[in-house]
Amino acid sequence: MGSREYGADGPSDLIGLVYDELTDERVKAHVPVSPAVVQQFGIVHGGIHSLIAESICSAATGMAVLPNGFIAVGQSNYATFLRPISAGTIHATATRRHAGRTTWIWDCELTDDEGRLCAMVRMTVAVRPQPGQPEPRQPTP
Amino acid sequence: MGSREYGADGPSDLIGLVYDELTDERVKAHVPVSPAVVQQFGIVHGGIHSLIAESICSAATGMAVLPNGFIAVGQSNYATFLRPISAGTIHATATRRHAGRTTWIWDCELTDDEGRLCAMVRMTVAVRPQPGQPEPRQPTP
Amino acid sequence: MGSREYGADGPSDLIGLVYDELTDERVKAHVPVSPAVVQQFGIVHGGIHSLIAESICSAATGMAVLPNGFIAVGQSNYATFLRPISAGTIHATATRRHAGRTTWIWDCELTDDEGRLCAMVRMTVAVRPQPGQPEPRQPTP
Amino acid sequence: MGSREYGADGPSDLIGLVYDELTDERVKAHVPVSPAVVQQFGIVHGGIHSLIAESICSAATGMAVLPNGFIAVGQSNYATFLRPISAGTIHATATRRHAGRTTWIWDCELTDDEGRLCAMVRMTVAVRPQPGQPEPRQPTP
Repeated sequence: MGSREYGADGPSDLIGLVYDELTDERVKAHVPVSPAVVQQFGIVHGGIHSLIAESICSAATGMAVLPNGFIAVGQSNYATFLRPISAGTIHATATRRHAGRTTWIWDCELTDDEGRLCAMVRMTVAVRPQPGQPEPRQPTP
Repeated sequence: MGSREYGADGPSDLIGLVYDELTDERVKAHVPVSPAVVQQFGIVHGGIHSLIAESICSAATGMAVLPNGFIAVGQSNYATFLRPISAGTIHATATRRHAGRTTWIWDCELTDDEGRLCAMVRMTVAVRPQPGQPEPRQPTP
Repeated sequence: MGSREYGADGPSDLIGLVYDELTDERVKAHVPVSPAVVQQFGIVHGGIHSLIAESICSAATGMAVLPNGFIAVGQSNYATFLRPISAGTIHATATRRHAGRTTWIWDCELTDDEGRLCAMVRMTVAVRPQPGQPEPRQPTP
Repeated sequence: MGSREYGADGPSDLIGLVYDELTDERVKAHVPVSPAVVQQFGIVHGGIHSLIAESICSAATGMAVLPNGFIAVGQSNYATFLRPISAGTIHATATRRHAGRTTWIWDCELTDDEGRLCAMVRMTVAVRPQPGQPEPRQPTP
């Protein structure tokens, strides 16, 4: 999937993030539970949920605004942890809630193999002009 | 440092987290900027800031409450990103703001080698009875 | 509506909050735009969105857990502001996302008369034993 | 105090907000505990803490950026509630943590008459060009 390359980065590679869908309104991705993502008690480290959301929401925003001369930069990441995951796969689904001139807002839900909601992330991505570019057109949409 | 082992976990090891101070009121730690922590534009991935804060605040809380029969579990992690880091070291300092019966609150600040504030994380750690234990004493303090 | 009395409090009365639906899984309420809720530029004060969410999510949680010997206490309130409202009515819909042993999580959306999303609040309500009561049964559900 | 007029708005007036200090780096204000600010159990409504922080951080940002052709608009408001207040005065102190080109970040602490920390709010205020103005100079600082 071509979109795979867009989101490629060190942390995402280290944890084995795989994109299943990547559009400017929704992203689906998954990460296998492995020693790379669990803390000392064997459950998925909370920071991994934050990291997954940050990766996929920034990737989707960046992919959408880049053609219009903008870049996407994470502005805030608010994660709430509900239920531990200790095996199987972390399933992430991010849904865009707002596409403004300067910020995009996403809700990302992390579920386990049984479909139970384990973490929720509200992610704000700032949309900024590309450095060194002439005044850009408005971002999409 | 004995406290190093307490906080050891997969994600912290992968990014090279090192503790410099670990008490129940303050934690200092650092992470070298390496390919493991940067995104595709070469700046530290926002999720790494979230992850560092989650690791060190949970470790400090857990270390403090475990002797009294409690465990520490991340409940929410709110990261605000202010300035990119692209080289050198990420310096993290977490200060405890509240030690309640059921939650501890920490403020974690992430700075670069010039001491500039690059990210701030407000972390809520839940304090819960250890599974399978008799009714515990109150957590410290 | 009997549920009206449950949620009655000073701030809710001052702003004219009216409940349209109040269950343990969903709350709908509205507030007319009046001088009591706008700031000096004539748009709804951001704190009013926070306050509405706090009121209705706490009311719904409290109503559900009180019969089992618990009380509901706001723990955190994260509001994101998307679009100003300057006239008409503020429409609030809160949906429960998690009903845990110690916390309930709600998503509250605030819309204008055209149905446009103007603010979003993720609200965490702590569920605690009633002071001075014997050890309560588990909260519903 | 001239600054009093700047922050004047409906909700602030209703709850009796009084400014004690108002600069672009720090704000101090207070609100008497009255029926206008307590919920049905007699303790200060959580939304009141959010509202106070929103008012004073927006006022201070707006006052600072207006002369340069910008306006201040609340972008997010994250309140954490630690301890109830049931009498006396709510004391609010907001400290600026970041003054960026497009956002200012403030930490607002709410204490009771004994100086105990009762709520904490991390407030993000967006700085935007005034509508209908020519391209403004950069905001202060």
